[in-house]
Amino acid sequence: MKLYDCAVAPNPRRARMFIAEKGLDIPRVEIDILGGENLKDSFLAINPRGLLPVLELEDGTRFDEAMAICRYLEELHPEPPLLGTTPVERAQIECMQRKMEFEGMIATSEVFRNKLDNDSFAYRSLPGVPSPAIPGLVERGTKTLERFFHWLEKYLEDGNPFIMGDRFTMVDITAVCAVDFAKWVDITIPKGNRNSLRWYDEVSARPSASA
Amino acid sequence: MKLYDCAVAPNPRRARMFIAEKGLDIPRVEIDILGGENLKDSFLAINPRGLLPVLELEDGTRFDEAMAICRYLEELHPEPPLLGTTPVERAQIECMQRKMEFEGMIATSEVFRNKLDNDSFAYRSLPGVPSPAIPGLVERGTKTLERFFHWLEKYLEDGNPFIMGDRFTMVDITAVCAVDFAKWVDITIPKGNRNSLRWYDEVSARPSASA
Repeated sequence: MKLYDCAVAPNPRRARMFIAEKGLDIPRVEIDILGGENLKDSFLAINPRGLLPVLELEDGTRFDEAMAICRYLEELHPEPPLLGTTPVERAQIECMQRKMEFEGMIATSEVFRNKLDNDSFAYRSLPGVPSPAIPGLVERGTKTLERFFHWLEKYLEDGNPFIMGDRFTMVDITAVCAVDFAKWVDITIPKGNRNSLRWYDEVSARPSASA
Repeated sequence: MKLYDCAVAPNPRRARMFIAEKGLDIPRVEIDILGGENLKDSFLAINPRGLLPVLELEDGTRFDEAMAICRYLEELHPEPPLLGTTPVERAQIECMQRKMEFEGMIATSEVFRNKLDNDSFAYRSLPGVPSPAIPGLVERGTKTLERFFHWLEKYLEDGNPFIMGDRFTMVDITAVCAVDFAKWVDITIPKGNRNSLRWYDEVSARPSASA
């Protein structure tokens, strides 16, 4: 098994954190997205869409979506559970994971990829595809991130250590990756959101956060 | 158990098709999205984001994401399997489901919601949130749909009846919902894509397609 990865990219980081939380040791193949290596023929032969992360099994089977990779690894290595232990928990975690992904990760991506002052990405409105920047997405994404931070604080205001309660889950992974990604566009947890700040410090201190 | 649903909306249709394929009978509560019922206080008390579908359990637990709803029902009612029967299959289906969702459903949504001639949605660039239309997304979404149809044809060119092979899965559900949704913006399967056309006819003839 090996993971096609990119150390600086936020989406592969989700898989990397998940793997670290599971205590697994999966060899990494670093692909240089900033240098455009993901769009070269050698990598397009691995993933025709040019996206990362990709998990490759011994028989050559490949999974090219972060959540599919995590779900596969959860099935093989159920402990510690990061995607829930009952059907209800699993559905609740999936609902919340999607919120963190769409309102956090994807909204930040919209802001980052469509800022015209961002030279190396000026023609990358979408990942993996030449697509001109759309400035309106910067404003829309910024507003979505305001909602993301609003809801994050709400989810944590009961004083629980993690978004889903007592237990660290995939939801915290996606959320912390989104928060760190948003820093790239100078958007941070609002100063008054003390539950979110407390949560962020705690999650960032886990060894997996620097995996 | 009950499903908050909207008969004309493409995303709730995914859950409805899934439920029909499972042979389940879950009471529906129709919410009139076109009339704005999803953004009124009465529904925001059910789902603060104003989105559909929502599955509500007897104890009041709610799942507000189509895929989480489907995954929950698959766990309770494994037959017929629509999300895979092994860890590898489940991961493969999740990868492909995401492609159909992002390149099909979400790309169509971008075109539909950002067309300025679409009066009732002129201020709904995002579902559930007041957000001005961004005309650049019409072009970007249209190009993404070209890629969606290109790949759909590729996945089917081995002559298999369904996208994942011999067995009908969630991937076919999301894909056919995307194809029908794209008709709303006058984008259809290209005439030369005979495998996709054959697949579309077959999937559309299933009783679940009109559920």
